[in-house]
Amino acid sequence: MSIRAVAVVLAGGSGTRLWPLSRLQIPKQFLAVVGDCTLFDATVNRLAPLIARDDVLVVSSRANAMGEGHATLAPFSKLLEPVGRNTAPAIALAAARLVDEGDPIMVVLPADHVITNVPAFHDCLKTAIACAEEGRLVTFGIRALHPETGFGYLNARGDGHGARPVTRFKEKPDRATAERMLAEGGWYWNSGMFVWRASTILAAIKKYAPDVHAAIANIRSAAKTLGWQPAIEAHFAAAPSISIDHAVLEKSADVWAVPADIGWSDVGSWDAVHDIAQKDDHGNALQGAVIALNSQNTLVRGANRLIATIGVADLTIVDTPDALLVAGRGHSQDVKHIVAQLQQRDAREHIEHLTVQRPWGTYTVLQETPGCKIKSIVVKPGGRLSLQSHQHRSEHWVVTQGEATVTREADTYAVKMNESTFIPIGAKHRLENRGATPLEIIEVQVGSYVGEDDITRYEDQYGRVPGKSEAKQ
Amino acid sequence: MSIRAVAVVLAGGSGTRLWPLSRLQIPKQFLAVVGDCTLFDATVNRLAPLIARDDVLVVSSRANAMGEGHATLAPFSKLLEPVGRNTAPAIALAAARLVDEGDPIMVVLPADHVITNVPAFHDCLKTAIACAEEGRLVTFGIRALHPETGFGYLNARGDGHGARPVTRFKEKPDRATAERMLAEGGWYWNSGMFVWRASTILAAIKKYAPDVHAAIANIRSAAKTLGWQPAIEAHFAAAPSISIDHAVLEKSADVWAVPADIGWSDVGSWDAVHDIAQKDDHGNALQGAVIALNSQNTLVRGANRLIATIGVADLTIVDTPDALLVAGRGHSQDVKHIVAQLQQRDAREHIEHLTVQRPWGTYTVLQETPGCKIKSIVVKPGGRLSLQSHQHRSEHWVVTQGEATVTREADTYAVKMNESTFIPIGAKHRLENRGATPLEIIEVQVGSYVGEDDITRYEDQYGRVPGKSEAKQ
Repeated sequence: MSIRAVAVVLAGGSGTRLWPLSRLQIPKQFLAVVGDCTLFDATVNRLAPLIARDDVLVVSSRANAMGEGHATLAPFSKLLEPVGRNTAPAIALAAARLVDEGDPIMVVLPADHVITNVPAFHDCLKTAIACAEEGRLVTFGIRALHPETGFGYLNARGDGHGARPVTRFKEKPDRATAERMLAEGGWYWNSGMFVWRASTILAAIKKYAPDVHAAIANIRSAAKTLGWQPAIEAHFAAAPSISIDHAVLEKSADVWAVPADIGWSDVGSWDAVHDIAQKDDHGNALQGAVIALNSQNTLVRGANRLIATIGVADLTIVDTPDALLVAGRGHSQDVKHIVAQLQQRDAREHIEHLTVQRPWGTYTVLQETPGCKIKSIVVKPGGRLSLQSHQHRSEHWVVTQGEATVTREADTYAVKMNESTFIPIGAKHRLENRGATPLEIIEVQVGSYVGEDDITRYEDQYGRVPGKSEAKQ
Repeated sequence: MSIRAVAVVLAGGSGTRLWPLSRLQIPKQFLAVVGDCTLFDATVNRLAPLIARDDVLVVSSRANAMGEGHATLAPFSKLLEPVGRNTAPAIALAAARLVDEGDPIMVVLPADHVITNVPAFHDCLKTAIACAEEGRLVTFGIRALHPETGFGYLNARGDGHGARPVTRFKEKPDRATAERMLAEGGWYWNSGMFVWRASTILAAIKKYAPDVHAAIANIRSAAKTLGWQPAIEAHFAAAPSISIDHAVLEKSADVWAVPADIGWSDVGSWDAVHDIAQKDDHGNALQGAVIALNSQNTLVRGANRLIATIGVADLTIVDTPDALLVAGRGHSQDVKHIVAQLQQRDAREHIEHLTVQRPWGTYTVLQETPGCKIKSIVVKPGGRLSLQSHQHRSEHWVVTQGEATVTREADTYAVKMNESTFIPIGAKHRLENRGATPLEIIEVQVGSYVGEDDITRYEDQYGRVPGKSEAKQ
């Protein structure tokens, strides 16, 4: 495409609407909700050939980039928010960075939506980019198919497939209003996908949301000496939390919509996942080791366990190593009430999975009892845990694949497959994989307290030592 | 009670009708299907004060007594069948043993049924014992409540609560026949509970099932020199496989029934379990860590995972560490089709649980990958694994509770909590708990093959060395 466009992928969200698959620390953009790749990867992949991977700028959070999203986000240019501030500051930040880099057209895309009709998406994208070239603010309008109360709506009347001016916005209407709007016509769901030139949106933000603009201007100015990421760490939190819709679009008179019939879904609930999933002749979407007898219209997401269904219909069954959901069709929005109950009880099944992503690899809790925790740890080639110590536990490590390089106090030594080593309480230690294949170890922790927060970090190549600057983002 | 009665508890069965909780190696008599104690323990406990625990003789299988039933059966006198031969040989065996021990009244009880009205059961038992005293064969007849096609029926007409002669038997009728029988009246379900004098049933078996009698007579005769259990091992397999109903009751003219309105259930399916389970105001029977929102008439049996249900009704959800069942009400009999499919695929989820009972304690498989298996092992005080070796794997042991006594080739040494040891491939070794508290270890197996069958046993205090006689049953 002759006009340079940069995709700004917003991947900072957290959310638990797809609990128990999604968790506070594992938002759905990093899950393979449909098909084999994550929603984030699908978002980037479907831009080809219009926008190259090198022209993707990700706005995400530190938590995502250090945690579940690390492997996914590693190849991309990133701006990492230290705290969430909704979409206006995120978009302003990306725009501020891009105006100094040739002021391209920005294609703003949430990382956690599904689009099944990619050719139609490409057509819309071309139309939107052409419209943005003329200095307009462009949004994708999804034809409202049912009186959804969870979405924002926009009204834009016009013929054909071209962009047309948006005359009205309506945030999450009640059911009666939504039905009236559907009957009235011309209403589209606001998809959260936008196209505009960086300088255009930045000027609009300055005009309609000067406090957002001021915070981002501080960052832009500080970035000249500190670099972008340290400038963000210093000033981003000062921005108000507000959506780009409220901050700008609902105020500007120059917002245009491209009607987008592109098989879009925000996959905001398990019912929505079921709607777009590939189904067998009985309406079942089965994933994992599933035996379904006499079962209809049922979504099953398995993990490592065998799942048998007999004589069920209109169910969602989502199995994970530590939590199981069985929900009737039409009830999957109520997952939020389950998550709320878990929060109240100070549980952990809504926070993270038993398998936890780290910049250096993953660990899985195999068993935890008072005084003892067993982990399976996988360290990527080149992965290196922080130099650390624990006050309340010692650790036994058995290497089951690959070769570990272990630092224990003053010594650094190799531990080969089928060998073991011991880290006493209080000893400074580090685990590292200098090999070319994954290192797998079993860790047996024994001590009076085996919580993850019993850790003192002295050195970390992923910048996880408080008070020290990041060696590598 | 002045008349001596011995309870013969038949606990040899295997079965998977309550899969995934029950498995081929974990029949339902050893499961706490209702309440906190196993069906076997409930069977024995409800005999008090009429029959003492010392007057219980268990007929079970070697597999049960060495496996899942070990802890449950340990305190009782036992006759262990090397192979299953249905109820006639089992009852004949018990009778043959008891005629030489004072020829008491035998109360034959399946170990896997539920009886909720214990006082009524006691009344029936007294009536049946008095009737058996007069030389009759007595069975308990359960008032047929619905046209069940899976049970045997007996017809016995009479007034009041007393015993009455049985005039007809009908094995598992079809639906139409069952309905006709219910309309006709006088039909009872054959509960499989019988009362008679040992010599009376033995004489009847000799008369009506001489081949059964002959096999048992060989055992009785051989027992005089070998002892009972070795005699059983030598001759029991020669008995034909036949039920006591077919072999004797349907042929004898002197069978009486005691009508038993005792809250009986054979808990032969999850629906039956749900029927007798304690339920909340919404008809839910929830066990485990369950959050149920807007859910009705649902049975949930949890294990260690959190289970959330939303907007479901008439479901059975049974969760175990390696298999999950979700079945609609009325479909729980079809569990057998799931088990059949698992057999066809040579799976293991119908055979045993991830936690496996052994005479010395238990082990739980925490993770298994090609070349590596992680187990959590608990050894009871006094428990002692066999002296053994493995051809294809070495083992790392970390003691997380208690103290291990480890034999490795010529050495025997202590491994204390938070210490570890290594067993190389091929080394003869043994793990033992000489302490007063449970010993817990984590075992990391590494090798080219980590199947359970890679074991050579040299010595075993539980008689598990092939070709050696049992040191202890």
